[in-house]
Amino acid sequence: MEEITIKDIARICKVGVSTVSRAINNHPDINPETKKMIMDTIQKYGYIPNNSARNLKRTDGKCVAVLVKGITNPFFADAIQIMEDEIKKKKYSMVIRHVEFNEDEVDVALELVKEKRLAGIIFLGGYFSHSEEKLHKLRIPFILSTVGCAPDGMHHDNYSSLSVDDEKEGYRMTDFLIRQGHEKIAILAAQPNDASIGRMRLNGYRKALKDHGIKPDEELIRHMRPEIKSYSMESGYVLTRELLDSGKEFTAIFALSDTMAVGACRAIVEAGKRVPEDYSVAGFDGIELCSYYNPTLTTIRQPIQHIAEASVKLLFDILAGRSGHQHKVFAGELLEQESTAKR
Amino acid sequence: MEEITIKDIARICKVGVSTVSRAINNHPDINPETKKMIMDTIQKYGYIPNNSARNLKRTDGKCVAVLVKGITNPFFADAIQIMEDEIKKKKYSMVIRHVEFNEDEVDVALELVKEKRLAGIIFLGGYFSHSEEKLHKLRIPFILSTVGCAPDGMHHDNYSSLSVDDEKEGYRMTDFLIRQGHEKIAILAAQPNDASIGRMRLNGYRKALKDHGIKPDEELIRHMRPEIKSYSMESGYVLTRELLDSGKEFTAIFALSDTMAVGACRAIVEAGKRVPEDYSVAGFDGIELCSYYNPTLTTIRQPIQHIAEASVKLLFDILAGRSGHQHKVFAGELLEQESTAKR
Repeated sequence: MEEITIKDIARICKVGVSTVSRAINNHPDINPETKKMIMDTIQKYGYIPNNSARNLKRTDGKCVAVLVKGITNPFFADAIQIMEDEIKKKKYSMVIRHVEFNEDEVDVALELVKEKRLAGIIFLGGYFSHSEEKLHKLRIPFILSTVGCAPDGMHHDNYSSLSVDDEKEGYRMTDFLIRQGHEKIAILAAQPNDASIGRMRLNGYRKALKDHGIKPDEELIRHMRPEIKSYSMESGYVLTRELLDSGKEFTAIFALSDTMAVGACRAIVEAGKRVPEDYSVAGFDGIELCSYYNPTLTTIRQPIQHIAEASVKLLFDILAGRSGHQHKVFAGELLEQESTAKR
Repeated sequence: MEEITIKDIARICKVGVSTVSRAINNHPDINPETKKMIMDTIQKYGYIPNNSARNLKRTDGKCVAVLVKGITNPFFADAIQIMEDEIKKKKYSMVIRHVEFNEDEVDVALELVKEKRLAGIIFLGGYFSHSEEKLHKLRIPFILSTVGCAPDGMHHDNYSSLSVDDEKEGYRMTDFLIRQGHEKIAILAAQPNDASIGRMRLNGYRKALKDHGIKPDEELIRHMRPEIKSYSMESGYVLTRELLDSGKEFTAIFALSDTMAVGACRAIVEAGKRVPEDYSVAGFDGIELCSYYNPTLTTIRQPIQHIAEASVKLLFDILAGRSGHQHKVFAGELLEQESTAKR
């Protein structure tokens, strides 16, 4: 049975979690009746407040590490918060480490294993091409969550992976744009030498064009550049300006992240053109901003909440001997909003 | 002398940092001439590549902890990345911990001090009202970076603080809107019981109105609610819809974060109105999105890069005995963009 959380108590009481927190912590700013109702509910459901001091006693320092490539990406920020909640529910503590693009995540992981009594590791984002020999040194279970590539030659029984099928989702969006009547579809892709999610999404784009009998135009494939932060708004903005300045004809842009799609929209607006009347723009990820941008953004929504929760659940199942390593593929969802239109 | 970093090498060579990284790591995807130029530059300036394995040997586990309230806020994400870079330059490792709103950050810090050999702590964001007695238990230097309140009764020689003057900056924006001809200015404020940065910015708003002889209209002061995530786009959206539905007259909205300003703009657009023609909207923080949103957002830009760098520098100066504790106030900058107009 899942343990009840502060969020469950809040939902049952129809109040915010901070109100529950105020009740627990004897905060003066709470209506006494509300407080009584909350405390009764807590007693009824046997909820144990989860503050860090109490945690400390229970965890005995048991710890799960989450290693993130790209901590400033809002897509990962959501995942981190969900993983932290799930790990806390299991009475483990979580340590987050940001891995820089030029750092070797397995070296970072090996260092952490030495420093702390780690039970397991979740690698979040980025890509992964390490030798089995090196990965064996970790000696604790690890999970690849929304990571691009499988470890080089590593047997799939020795690690777990959870992600969408990036090629399939890249195909899904391109196919959608083609069915909307677009044929000249530009793509804002990763660096040319990328061998990760960016490459897989681009493959999906090429495949969809091919299946519809459209010859890919290499001038419409625009790659991120090393001097601009990957998958950033700035990157989307700069690439789209160049595309507009080039005079190449196109009617839609498929940006490989929502943040790049935001930059693309801004470049189009600054050029005196409109989205979607002059150019359709589509993103990828499904971050919160998609529903608040003007226009709202058509995107592939990755089920990041499910992926994050399932990553933690699987790790603990493995630790408890209830499961072996698994490889789960999650379906993305095409969210059609204002930024794309029929041609 | 500051040690030279990979970014410096990239700047000197006029290439991206990832190109420098490829040169160092013998990556095949690099032009041999570029590689030679980079390796020569590295030798000339005595740059020592900073990968984690080498770091490990040098740091002897020396570590600085950064405790963040609100890790999903893009404003803090920038600060985290800068702090991490600066801490690495000093050959220390950094551990990031997210502190939940209902957690006691000092309990979390005490736990970390036990677990790890911490040299110092940076508290990032949130507010702070702990007793001197409890804080003394930390026994290591700590810095409050962009934190709302001073520790209760704690002598200012015993901790450092670095932030903008939130009341002054709230005044600055309100004064600007009034000088643009706005008198009926709604504000999207923190929860009514907030005693932190939200309260201080609201105080600045009230003071500016008063100085201009405008009586504050309490119905135009809209507070976040506990059941919606604080300072979120959703919060700005919901409060603005209510404001529009109420029929109250107003011509401008001052949102206490950029993310809330984004939600406000979206609510206005969905109501069939325009920003800034029908309503001016201003935010606070100066996140990257302000320059890519449609319309671009007028905001108070906090010098987060300076604050983050100075926080780390001060901590290391204190650790080295080169400085006592200090209290630094940074000036915000009013960035006027498309979302506000003269009335």
